[in-house]
Amino acid sequence: MPDIVFHDPPRFPRGFRCASRLIGLKPSGKDLALFVSEVDAAAAAVFTRNHFPGAPVILGRETIRGGRLRAIVVNSKVSNVATGARGVEDARRMASAAAAEIGTVPDRVLVSSTGVIGVPLPIDRIEDGIRGIAGELQSDPLIGAQGIMTTDTHPKALSACIGDATITWVAKGSGMIEPNMATMLSYIFTDARIDAAALDRMLRDAVHASFNMLSVDTDTSTSDTCAILANGLAGEVDAAAFQETLNAGCIRMTEILARDGEGATHLLRTTVRGAKTIEDARTVAKALVNSPLVKTMVHGADPNVGRLLMAVGKCFGCMIVQERTDAWINGYQVVRRGARLDFDDATVREALRREVVDLEVALGVGTCDARAYGCDLTKGYIDENAAYYSS
Amino acid sequence: MPDIVFHDPPRFPRGFRCASRLIGLKPSGKDLALFVSEVDAAAAAVFTRNHFPGAPVILGRETIRGGRLRAIVVNSKVSNVATGARGVEDARRMASAAAAEIGTVPDRVLVSSTGVIGVPLPIDRIEDGIRGIAGELQSDPLIGAQGIMTTDTHPKALSACIGDATITWVAKGSGMIEPNMATMLSYIFTDARIDAAALDRMLRDAVHASFNMLSVDTDTSTSDTCAILANGLAGEVDAAAFQETLNAGCIRMTEILARDGEGATHLLRTTVRGAKTIEDARTVAKALVNSPLVKTMVHGADPNVGRLLMAVGKCFGCMIVQERTDAWINGYQVVRRGARLDFDDATVREALRREVVDLEVALGVGTCDARAYGCDLTKGYIDENAAYYSS
Repeated sequence: MPDIVFHDPPRFPRGFRCASRLIGLKPSGKDLALFVSEVDAAAAAVFTRNHFPGAPVILGRETIRGGRLRAIVVNSKVSNVATGARGVEDARRMASAAAAEIGTVPDRVLVSSTGVIGVPLPIDRIEDGIRGIAGELQSDPLIGAQGIMTTDTHPKALSACIGDATITWVAKGSGMIEPNMATMLSYIFTDARIDAAALDRMLRDAVHASFNMLSVDTDTSTSDTCAILANGLAGEVDAAAFQETLNAGCIRMTEILARDGEGATHLLRTTVRGAKTIEDARTVAKALVNSPLVKTMVHGADPNVGRLLMAVGKCFGCMIVQERTDAWINGYQVVRRGARLDFDDATVREALRREVVDLEVALGVGTCDARAYGCDLTKGYIDENAAYYSS
Repeated sequence: MPDIVFHDPPRFPRGFRCASRLIGLKPSGKDLALFVSEVDAAAAAVFTRNHFPGAPVILGRETIRGGRLRAIVVNSKVSNVATGARGVEDARRMASAAAAEIGTVPDRVLVSSTGVIGVPLPIDRIEDGIRGIAGELQSDPLIGAQGIMTTDTHPKALSACIGDATITWVAKGSGMIEPNMATMLSYIFTDARIDAAALDRMLRDAVHASFNMLSVDTDTSTSDTCAILANGLAGEVDAAAFQETLNAGCIRMTEILARDGEGATHLLRTTVRGAKTIEDARTVAKALVNSPLVKTMVHGADPNVGRLLMAVGKCFGCMIVQERTDAWINGYQVVRRGARLDFDDATVREALRREVVDLEVALGVGTCDARAYGCDLTKGYIDENAAYYSS
């Protein structure tokens, strides 16, 4: 992992601005966001693999084929999923309204909606809400991040430089997160000059090691979207260095999303080394990060080491050899050759209290590694989800 | 499903008795159980597929090859998992002690241990505890069920007649339950005369539709064991009728285990109809029963129908067609052709408050059905598991 310096506060690349508004979809906060590049940008995107993609995802797949975007328009509170033909029509109207507002064509506008599933989009209110928003565009990416939040506890944006260019990440996501192609909503902006085909390859590479290894609750959203826009205003950059920074920022944003998982009090990172295949490494890392018993163990700061072995051992299809399996909790070895070590309980318990908990497993049967990202399971998750629809 | 009448209270088949004791592994309750047939019984068993099976499972696979058992001896509190060569030696000593106590050979005794993983078995105390227990054998299966409980809130036993013969189920299990071959610990006793090979086939058939469709928390235990003993004292029975009753009892016991899932307040049944393949039907039913967002929705009695679609839609490998998907909550249709119906919210909310919640999905792409069994996700689960090891 290269040493990337993220800006504080985050800032936009040349030519990008954003705005957000409260248009009455939510009782308070912001519920509409617009991200704009002053010139057309090369663009790529990946979307959810859920069989019931939202209308914005259906439209987005069509839009991104052109490989060029000027803007992204997003509403929160209502996701426009399971809304039939009317839903796709509403998504088109949202693209058209944003296009008219900034003076481009609807094909250059990516639409996202996030929130409750199965409720029609209040499209008239959204069209009204878009009118005039171009006059409020600002250069602070956190303004746009506010407009896309649902159960997030804070707006999420990052930026870093790569040569003369900048990359900025804006994302949201807290629950219904085990993305498979992308996270809930994640937008990446850069002023580097990169064509759409290369952007697509680079984005898929970055997402593979970051958002696709994130799981808050094993539930894959119907709205997952990750898009990247490169407007070229900073000229060419070194491709390898760009990829490295892109990956590092996607991983950092993945950690931020995991730490803000619904009800979470810890960021949980699970690292698997020495697997026979990359797929095995990813499967075991995901099994650890998703296990309710591992997640509650982390929540309770309880070194119940048997649960680590259980979660590794339930990966039926993977090459696992008990006698070769070692495990560590925040650097303390707790399992050697498949058996629990007689470690100092109080020390490991103290280590588990850290905000970031690293569980590491060495399988000893190969050379493949992977890391997954998640959080602990708490009563806060139950509180947030036993009455999300009603509230 | 045939109309099976379960006895109240449950009773044993001819020739079976049991005893349980508190030998100081737990602070209170019972922690040692012995189940005995007065004559050798044909026997079959299935065990966990976890890569780190407990020592009793390793020994049990060896023992069951003989196809004959006289007794099952079980301790709770310590599972004898991840305890290396010493663990297997301890399991053998436990079998020998029970064999000596009832006058048989160790090869006719199946051993189980359940509880915390990674702690050595207190074998001296268990050997002492077994001494004299044969003098306490009784004909009430609930006595034995008490001795195998961990976080269970009540002892679990069932019985039913099939012709002149009886089948009795005794089981435990509450957390770390997504069995894959069997549930935590489940023992079935009958006085029907059936040979070991036929028993093995019948057991696998029953387990496939019952315990293997149970999930409390997606976590597969390292100790799962399901064994059946047939001592023949009631003579031959009709094989088809026996299989039918065996399946019905295994399904009923699965429901009892699911309802007593850690922290649970509802039994959740998810039924999938019209799938392209049996595997698709089982995968979608499991995805529904395991989704934290569906489980918290059931807990909150909140008809957040989009979550049903999300959970069906995330079964990437299955044949799912949005326009053909219908769904019901306790009999009320809430989704038609992939879109949310405009149902009466209050009615469905009321239906969700029932102790048993049935979610049904019709995929409309084939003729295969499956049902899975689980429970809601509550703060009680967090309470029980944030400090299980320490408590």
